[in-house]
Amino acid sequence: MTMQPVLLNKASRLLNHGPTVLVGSAHGGRTNVMAAAWAMPLDFDPPKVAVVIDQSTLTRQLVESSGVLSVCVPCVAQADLTRAVGGESGKDHPDKLQRCGVAWTAGPETGCPLVEGAIAWMECRVLPATRHVAAPHDLILAEVVSAWADDRVFSNGRWHFETGPQDLRSLHHVAGGSFYAVGDAVFPH
Amino acid sequence: MTMQPVLLNKASRLLNHGPTVLVGSAHGGRTNVMAAAWAMPLDFDPPKVAVVIDQSTLTRQLVESSGVLSVCVPCVAQADLTRAVGGESGKDHPDKLQRCGVAWTAGPETGCPLVEGAIAWMECRVLPATRHVAAPHDLILAEVVSAWADDRVFSNGRWHFETGPQDLRSLHHVAGGSFYAVGDAVFPH
Repeated sequence: MTMQPVLLNKASRLLNHGPTVLVGSAHGGRTNVMAAAWAMPLDFDPPKVAVVIDQSTLTRQLVESSGVLSVCVPCVAQADLTRAVGGESGKDHPDKLQRCGVAWTAGPETGCPLVEGAIAWMECRVLPATRHVAAPHDLILAEVVSAWADDRVFSNGRWHFETGPQDLRSLHHVAGGSFYAVGDAVFPH
Repeated sequence: MTMQPVLLNKASRLLNHGPTVLVGSAHGGRTNVMAAAWAMPLDFDPPKVAVVIDQSTLTRQLVESSGVLSVCVPCVAQADLTRAVGGESGKDHPDKLQRCGVAWTAGPETGCPLVEGAIAWMECRVLPATRHVAAPHDLILAEVVSAWADDRVFSNGRWHFETGPQDLRSLHHVAGGSFYAVGDAVFPH
């Protein structure tokens, strides 16, 4: 077992460096996962996140119905999976997760999918202020209620990609399914 | 001259990969620059961005007074500068930009500082929906009205870090002034 709990007051660290994420959702017997490049932390403690989820997506429909979502951080080993879930809609393919090779477990707090092989998982509850920004800007604001990370690359409240396997590095979207992996450490002297 | 105009419908690409940014502000004869790790695109065309700016900062005060801001993408060569402007407040040091070694020019649309040596510049106007999310969540939403990028690493509407100088790579904040540079390309087969 490599996924270890992350203290909530350190959960914002999981997104500080700007990785592409997978957004998981579940409602009324439907479960979905999509890729989202536009996500960031919104607060430290309690931890909050902001993520842009287009109104045309099944994810948006499920998140608005349930009031919960998961945010997972995929790694280099999951680049194809990330492209796949970013490239087709759960509206068109009810079996999207199977088609895209997504293995997952249901988060204990929300029931939203936590994607196997991702290097971080967060379960989140949608915040009230979302009602002002969802319709005009597709922006979902949420509080993180539980978090885990892969202890091969995240420990003691921070990422350590420089000492972990290359294929566990996070993905950073450029355009059109191209990513950069997170790279070399630039630490203070 | 390495800073070249970026088409507005490609400006969201400048932040897709989640870099740390420098937020510039100007109002009533005061000018400031701060570092912000929590920034992301919000829309494609017209391009919009979201950035978290703490209510205690001079930047927040200036941005709320003027309704405009600049967002610059610093590079590895500017890691010390980025730490410096992230480490002290313009409230405490009216000469902060000089102290931190920030050379800048005033943006033509907004008068906000465009930091010399940064690999991308955007000028932005605050959006109306900000009034719902600034007070509760320190979240500023803005439309990008002009954009430039360094053609050694950004051309034809996308980043090309893999063929540019290492010290022009973007910075991605980990914690406490430590960053990762953006790394290797993970492109589709």
